Amino acid sequence: MNEPEQRASPITPTVDFSAEGIQHGFLRLPYSRDDSAWGSVMIPITVVKNGEGPTALLTGGNHGDEYEGPIALFDLARTLKAEDVCGRVIIVPAMNYPAFVAGTRTSPIDKGNLNRSFPGKPDGTVTQKIADYFQRALLPLADIVLDFHSGGKTLDFLPFCAAHILSDKAQEQRSFELVQAFSAPYSMKMLEIDAVGMYDTAAEDMGKVFITTELGGGGTATAKSAGIAKRGVANVLRRAGILKGEADVAPTQWLDMPGGDCFAFAEEGGLIEPLVDMGGTVVKGQVVARIYPIGRTGAPPSKVHAKMDGILCARHFPGLVKAGDCVAVFAMTV
Amino acid sequence: MNEPEQRASPITPTVDFSAEGIQHGFLRLPYSRDDSAWGSVMIPITVVKNGEGPTALLTGGNHGDEYEGPIALFDLARTLKAEDVCGRVIIVPAMNYPAFVAGTRTSPIDKGNLNRSFPGKPDGTVTQKIADYFQRALLPLADIVLDFHSGGKTLDFLPFCAAHILSDKAQEQRSFELVQAFSAPYSMKMLEIDAVGMYDTAAEDMGKVFITTELGGGGTATAKSAGIAKRGVANVLRRAGILKGEADVAPTQWLDMPGGDCFAFAEEGGLIEPLVDMGGTVVKGQVVARIYPIGRTGAPPSKVHAKMDGILCARHFPGLVKAGDCVAVFAMTV
Amino acid sequence: MNEPEQRASPITPTVDFSAEGIQHGFLRLPYSRDDSAWGSVMIPITVVKNGEGPTALLTGGNHGDEYEGPIALFDLARTLKAEDVCGRVIIVPAMNYPAFVAGTRTSPIDKGNLNRSFPGKPDGTVTQKIADYFQRALLPLADIVLDFHSGGKTLDFLPFCAAHILSDKAQEQRSFELVQAFSAPYSMKMLEIDAVGMYDTAAEDMGKVFITTELGGGGTATAKSAGIAKRGVANVLRRAGILKGEADVAPTQWLDMPGGDCFAFAEEGGLIEPLVDMGGTVVKGQVVARIYPIGRTGAPPSKVHAKMDGILCARHFPGLVKAGDCVAVFAMTV
Amino acid sequence: MNEPEQRASPITPTVDFSAEGIQHGFLRLPYSRDDSAWGSVMIPITVVKNGEGPTALLTGGNHGDEYEGPIALFDLARTLKAEDVCGRVIIVPAMNYPAFVAGTRTSPIDKGNLNRSFPGKPDGTVTQKIADYFQRALLPLADIVLDFHSGGKTLDFLPFCAAHILSDKAQEQRSFELVQAFSAPYSMKMLEIDAVGMYDTAAEDMGKVFITTELGGGGTATAKSAGIAKRGVANVLRRAGILKGEADVAPTQWLDMPGGDCFAFAEEGGLIEPLVDMGGTVVKGQVVARIYPIGRTGAPPSKVHAKMDGILCARHFPGLVKAGDCVAVFAMTV
Amino acid sequence: MNEPEQRASPITPTVDFSAEGIQHGFLRLPYSRDDSAWGSVMIPITVVKNGEGPTALLTGGNHGDEYEGPIALFDLARTLKAEDVCGRVIIVPAMNYPAFVAGTRTSPIDKGNLNRSFPGKPDGTVTQKIADYFQRALLPLADIVLDFHSGGKTLDFLPFCAAHILSDKAQEQRSFELVQAFSAPYSMKMLEIDAVGMYDTAAEDMGKVFITTELGGGGTATAKSAGIAKRGVANVLRRAGILKGEADVAPTQWLDMPGGDCFAFAEEGGLIEPLVDMGGTVVKGQVVARIYPIGRTGAPPSKVHAKMDGILCARHFPGLVKAGDCVAVFAMTV
Amino acid sequence: MNEPEQRASPITPTVDFSAEGIQHGFLRLPYSRDDSAWGSVMIPITVVKNGEGPTALLTGGNHGDEYEGPIALFDLARTLKAEDVCGRVIIVPAMNYPAFVAGTRTSPIDKGNLNRSFPGKPDGTVTQKIADYFQRALLPLADIVLDFHSGGKTLDFLPFCAAHILSDKAQEQRSFELVQAFSAPYSMKMLEIDAVGMYDTAAEDMGKVFITTELGGGGTATAKSAGIAKRGVANVLRRAGILKGEADVAPTQWLDMPGGDCFAFAEEGGLIEPLVDMGGTVVKGQVVARIYPIGRTGAPPSKVHAKMDGILCARHFPGLVKAGDCVAVFAMTV
Repeated sequence: MNEPEQRASPITPTVDFSAEGIQHGFLRLPYSRDDSAWGSVMIPITVVKNGEGPTALLTGGNHGDEYEGPIALFDLARTLKAEDVCGRVIIVPAMNYPAFVAGTRTSPIDKGNLNRSFPGKPDGTVTQKIADYFQRALLPLADIVLDFHSGGKTLDFLPFCAAHILSDKAQEQRSFELVQAFSAPYSMKMLEIDAVGMYDTAAEDMGKVFITTELGGGGTATAKSAGIAKRGVANVLRRAGILKGEADVAPTQWLDMPGGDCFAFAEEGGLIEPLVDMGGTVVKGQVVARIYPIGRTGAPPSKVHAKMDGILCARHFPGLVKAGDCVAVFAMTV
Repeated sequence: MNEPEQRASPITPTVDFSAEGIQHGFLRLPYSRDDSAWGSVMIPITVVKNGEGPTALLTGGNHGDEYEGPIALFDLARTLKAEDVCGRVIIVPAMNYPAFVAGTRTSPIDKGNLNRSFPGKPDGTVTQKIADYFQRALLPLADIVLDFHSGGKTLDFLPFCAAHILSDKAQEQRSFELVQAFSAPYSMKMLEIDAVGMYDTAAEDMGKVFITTELGGGGTATAKSAGIAKRGVANVLRRAGILKGEADVAPTQWLDMPGGDCFAFAEEGGLIEPLVDMGGTVVKGQVVARIYPIGRTGAPPSKVHAKMDGILCARHFPGLVKAGDCVAVFAMTV
Repeated sequence: MNEPEQRASPITPTVDFSAEGIQHGFLRLPYSRDDSAWGSVMIPITVVKNGEGPTALLTGGNHGDEYEGPIALFDLARTLKAEDVCGRVIIVPAMNYPAFVAGTRTSPIDKGNLNRSFPGKPDGTVTQKIADYFQRALLPLADIVLDFHSGGKTLDFLPFCAAHILSDKAQEQRSFELVQAFSAPYSMKMLEIDAVGMYDTAAEDMGKVFITTELGGGGTATAKSAGIAKRGVANVLRRAGILKGEADVAPTQWLDMPGGDCFAFAEEGGLIEPLVDMGGTVVKGQVVARIYPIGRTGAPPSKVHAKMDGILCARHFPGLVKAGDCVAVFAMTV
Repeated sequence: MNEPEQRASPITPTVDFSAEGIQHGFLRLPYSRDDSAWGSVMIPITVVKNGEGPTALLTGGNHGDEYEGPIALFDLARTLKAEDVCGRVIIVPAMNYPAFVAGTRTSPIDKGNLNRSFPGKPDGTVTQKIADYFQRALLPLADIVLDFHSGGKTLDFLPFCAAHILSDKAQEQRSFELVQAFSAPYSMKMLEIDAVGMYDTAAEDMGKVFITTELGGGGTATAKSAGIAKRGVANVLRRAGILKGEADVAPTQWLDMPGGDCFAFAEEGGLIEPLVDMGGTVVKGQVVARIYPIGRTGAPPSKVHAKMDGILCARHFPGLVKAGDCVAVFAMTV
Repeated sequence: MNEPEQRASPITPTVDFSAEGIQHGFLRLPYSRDDSAWGSVMIPITVVKNGEGPTALLTGGNHGDEYEGPIALFDLARTLKAEDVCGRVIIVPAMNYPAFVAGTRTSPIDKGNLNRSFPGKPDGTVTQKIADYFQRALLPLADIVLDFHSGGKTLDFLPFCAAHILSDKAQEQRSFELVQAFSAPYSMKMLEIDAVGMYDTAAEDMGKVFITTELGGGGTATAKSAGIAKRGVANVLRRAGILKGEADVAPTQWLDMPGGDCFAFAEEGGLIEPLVDMGGTVVKGQVVARIYPIGRTGAPPSKVHAKMDGILCARHFPGLVKAGDCVAVFAMTV
Repeated sequence: MNEPEQRASPITPTVDFSAEGIQHGFLRLPYSRDDSAWGSVMIPITVVKNGEGPTALLTGGNHGDEYEGPIALFDLARTLKAEDVCGRVIIVPAMNYPAFVAGTRTSPIDKGNLNRSFPGKPDGTVTQKIADYFQRALLPLADIVLDFHSGGKTLDFLPFCAAHILSDKAQEQRSFELVQAFSAPYSMKMLEIDAVGMYDTAAEDMGKVFITTELGGGGTATAKSAGIAKRGVANVLRRAGILKGEADVAPTQWLDMPGGDCFAFAEEGGLIEPLVDMGGTVVKGQVVARIYPIGRTGAPPSKVHAKMDGILCARHFPGLVKAGDCVAVFAMTV
């Protein structure tokens, strides 16, 4: 008995991926709802193609509250010239477009976390339909994939570019070369414990060269962090031979996150007083934050300790913390 | 015909403001509502009194999403010793307590902006009742008032302490002395155009020495910014003779905001790309940010220009901006 | 200079208060809103008139989540016969009708607590318009007023009928006679500290004989508590000479609430374990409830103590309690 | 003792009302809130001035879900040429701009019904601040005022232009001349019973020539109804001598609404079956609609009757009706 | 290995489908939730049976904001006499009853679009449980199925009855005969591209004669459109031999929708100005609507073009349009 | 082809189930969301182990608005001494912790009813992840399971302990022995018609001795009902030989619910007047409640009848009732 043929994606692109030149269009995803019976989600997309060469798929807004990627990609989409390209560049600055418009990590439509929704479903939720379209339509077109992340409204990260440790060492090697080319201030080799549902895994399982980033956080971007993203994407395209010109490389500090001791969680909610700032060094056992109970004054705060030596590479961003929140993440310099 | 006598405040303190020693308690404000017919808002308060001397009223959480003040004051409330005090310290780390618990600028109960609600009303909204209690019960007890602010979730500020330019020059002078003592990296002399409803004005109109701060923003705090707040409040208490010990003063850069040209507003909403970072210098006419329309790729961004020479002293924080939002504020160094 | 003439009420009754016989109709209150530009609130009302005699105004649903009154009055409205009446009975089973439909203490339209909205405003909120109509149109028609209350969804009460201690002792005496006639299991003489905005005060200030009740709570009614209400209203009408027949009186226990020590408030939120049940006796200092912090197991609960000897006459109803909630109320038997 | 001078409006226009030529700009109204501490409401405005002549103030979006006016005025704002104007035209296509963006009758910010908020308050709600700016800044500039209305999402109207019956008969006469010039299919002479808070009244009390419309409803517009609005506004400007060219007049049917019998209200909610369509004739006592209870099948519907002879000039629009909704309005042809 | 037996439907009917005569009852669907632990959804149903003959299943409210069907069916349910029936009529005026009560296209409980939920699941969401009951309990009882639709709150349609082009030509033929009998002003032969999850497909796959309608829209009904529905259902029952009497047939205009060029979508949101009304003729390339950006005056509107010659048979209803909304649908007359 | 190995649970316990002594900790369930990208749900848990012996798994808060169980278990967790235990006691006072914190039957995160979510899914909703952890991690550790329930906010029950009639009569016998030991005022033998998704069934299918309770309702607890729970759990542990000491047994009345006639549902919504109280006897056909339509006064109420002889063992709690709600449940004494 054969597996039934999978349903076609409901998404219709208004661009032709095989056409030469620059096209700005949409991925139109029908979305029937109370306020528009025959409405659609319109995900902006740009395709730039010039002759033969590899295809880069560049994405931002996988989580809707992370901004360095969308800034770099909206900028690239309007400034990239076809004549400077050898091959093809597909740019989707805001993958989970409903989340991006709302400024939220997950989709306001279905609370879907796009980066845990792969491979998606053509007849699932809106977020699952987006995942399915990347899985079955866009990823197969790509040779290299760059997916921008930052910390979003509730986390802050040291700026780094990263790739995964893979069983296919040739694939891994090509990925780390692009990480090096990206030239973020920090670079990370990641071993994903639980990679179920991730876009990263979907791309890597198809043999694509996949790199990602964390470039700041707090639901904002700075001139500096946006500049890292803009330089990084140009560098990657140049190193891959898709964009003409020389990569503008810079030194980077490689980091390693050895295991569960990297993470410190809160067991009490309250007002957080950070005692170490981003990039600061810590030693095992050091108190890195206090959490004040906010119901009354005069009560002692609880304390959050580092479980390893290292530097602070990510932290809880909002001023209040809830029990169970990750307060701090530490990494080792390599 | 006489004005009718004003109604008493519905707020009951559980502390005795005239008692010696340390008391941790509440301002209990009855608040009848669907989920608690006989409920109350419980605003934490600490009073430390030791012998004769002036009274300092120290407040944070006037806006509920600003954290340096509450951190410094929850910390001070649990660490201040009565024997180190000469006079009285009244600490309310979270004035608009419902907003502070919710992590929002305004009260989730009535959307009240406490700092535009003075002098308040004893029979008004919850926020107006809080304002009224400060107006009629707490401010009259005080000689000096320090009210902590930061940028909150939607603005970011260079860290400064500030006082207002006042018609009573002696009062102004005493205020600027305390600003100098606070020793924030920056200090500001402010001329308030529209001071209606502000706590600042309420205090100043009673002749109090009033200082305030902006110490960061984004709805977070850092070890550095919290440290500025903690050192600042101790310095102010020491300079005022209320706390024993020497003030730990540091150099500060004085700033001036000369008028409406300081402010740049967005006329279009979209994705903001900052081109200048906090503290960076600008010249009149310089493009300081681009705003990308997010409905499609390939469209030109609008531009935000500086209308004066100066440094960037405040900025819009979230990655998306709406038409009408203040994008950037510039100041002149003095 | 004359006071400007007050605006007319926007409410139109569909009944004629001077007509003989039984009429079931509405108080129609225009309420323009997004989902009905020319909509109205329709408050059900019944008027029964037969010849000459005093007028009773009978009301329930002053708070929308209290049910003994509405049950007794919907029942009375459909069963009362004009020929059994001498005078007039005006029945409004659900004063704050929007709150009653929503099953909430306050109005879902404007969060108005009707019993703190008197004398109301003809051009105010919907709740203020209702108050104004009772103030200026219905109360002036009445000789005696019976307003039913219960504890609502968040409080529970021993069943009692009550009247206020008044400066006009003749008026007070007539009120307590009706309380006695009501024959609830308990009866209460109340001295209102803060009576601003209450329907009670509005009625008493016009010289009306006013009685009220608390007949249970929790947002429910039982066969027993509804029976107390039904018997009580019939008894009151009979004692007032408006309804034919003999009052079905029963013994009642008079209670007294001497002051602020009657009330016990929570300073911590959590899971409440009651240690005394309704009507149970307590002695001063006794632990009457424990409050478990719910964030972790193994932590000690806080304790709520009685501040006087007496019996438990009201209690917090929901299983969780918030800081500031009234946990227990005690009364003395007289 | 003098009345205190009123506070200045917080609204800043970005246009110069005395400048020659065409300006497109904003009324910027500062609006501090949780998602933008220093945000603003930006109300689009166009000013076209050419030489000497009268000023017309043209407004739509007084209620945010009425579309013929905004269509005609956005169209006029982009097509009107200064050289065709003699005097000044001030165009605000969406007065209650937050409501217009939300597509709701009232403001989503404060639930304010702008047309019941005059004269407004400079320190009130956002809606009251808008009213105040029209009251004190824009209306004084105008000679004639045309304010577009339609039925909105919950009502439907026969298309008519209207003016009020006024005590100043010369003012009334000039108004009705402009109504005639507007040339809607129907024209109405209105006697407002309760005109408190209306923009109409504010304009008329200043002696302005004020006309208004109802041009359809249901929260939509058609090519036909938008065409009536576009022709009407041009006709009015031409008749007033502000716009060059001849008015394109057409015959109109005058209507009269004699009193309370014009209105039929629902006493039961349910599913409405209309039995007469817009413009249809009815006789007194005729059943004009049935209302089916929706809780079960087989139950008899209630009936709505006409209380006068006439034609159906307005009706409840949504398929479900609530008790208290106005179901139908009748008028007499004159 | 066998497929596990499917779980029984949780729905209990209170009617007996095999009993003679008229029964009004409910489909009771248990629905445990926060506000009713042991609550149910009660879907009204009427069954009329008289002797032998075919069974018609008549349904409305598949989408909850479409009213012609519910009006015709609530009316039929209360007026149909058993003695006029030969066979059986099953009437469910509001299939997605929670959506119908809310006046929304989809269910407020689970956002389920019933017409994309077939075949449903007995242990799924409330909407899926309803679909499952029709799939497994009601459709098997039927010979002919008439499912009423209209445009709902966000679309407007020319009034037509329709059936699908089917592979079984005899089944198709019987369906089109009933469409002809319905006698709507327009009739449509539909070729469904993506029929997954539709009630239509579920019925057709069982070999039932299935017809449907679109009879207007905007979330309202008129006397005229409701009349079309009432006449249509009677005609269908008469043509099928289930209802006594002659069908009241009238001429109809057959339409055809040839493909994707029928649909025009918005790529920009804004204020829509329709340039063609329902039933109006267009030629390929014609501008059929303008969309004004609402952020400022003076900006040029975008334009929506017809991609074929034909007549306007459906349109976006609300005055504002969002990017991705279907603005207009064109059909060819046959 | 093998079934793919199931994914590991995402939940991490902070306690060691095999360690001796008392541990208070958490089940940490990662929950990424808009307000905490790396947040977690922290479910409190206590493990007490002393030597060899059986394991009891004690749970409350399966539904979040039922309080006797959480009270008894938070109390037990802080008072149980390891030296009094022979074996192991695992205490989870609030299984569906998010629902418990919200005071709602179902989870506010996903509306999940935990007791219909078994066996759960490791990659499903938060509620399904909790079910999966109990299914695969905690239930296998247990010999006996006691799961506390009460009526919650919308139902009220006579206090009883219960077990199911099982096909394994030895297992059933052991369960009923523990029910007898619990010594609630009433005891029930339950035959579950539809046990799909229940925790009960999951436990029984593994051969565990499973007992449950209903101990009151209305979303509250009393000193009396909490006392029943505290005594009951101690009795069960003692009877099972896990806790030292003698069980404090008391007489109990056994009840039986013979079938569908036990339940009375409302077909109309409105204001409910109960005519019988909890534990009261009824005869078949007796009117047990009236339901008043609340839209107008003077209309007759509908009536709810008993369909069997028995006593009232459960009832609808809130004062308003909706069509489809279960109004009353009757049982027979055995």
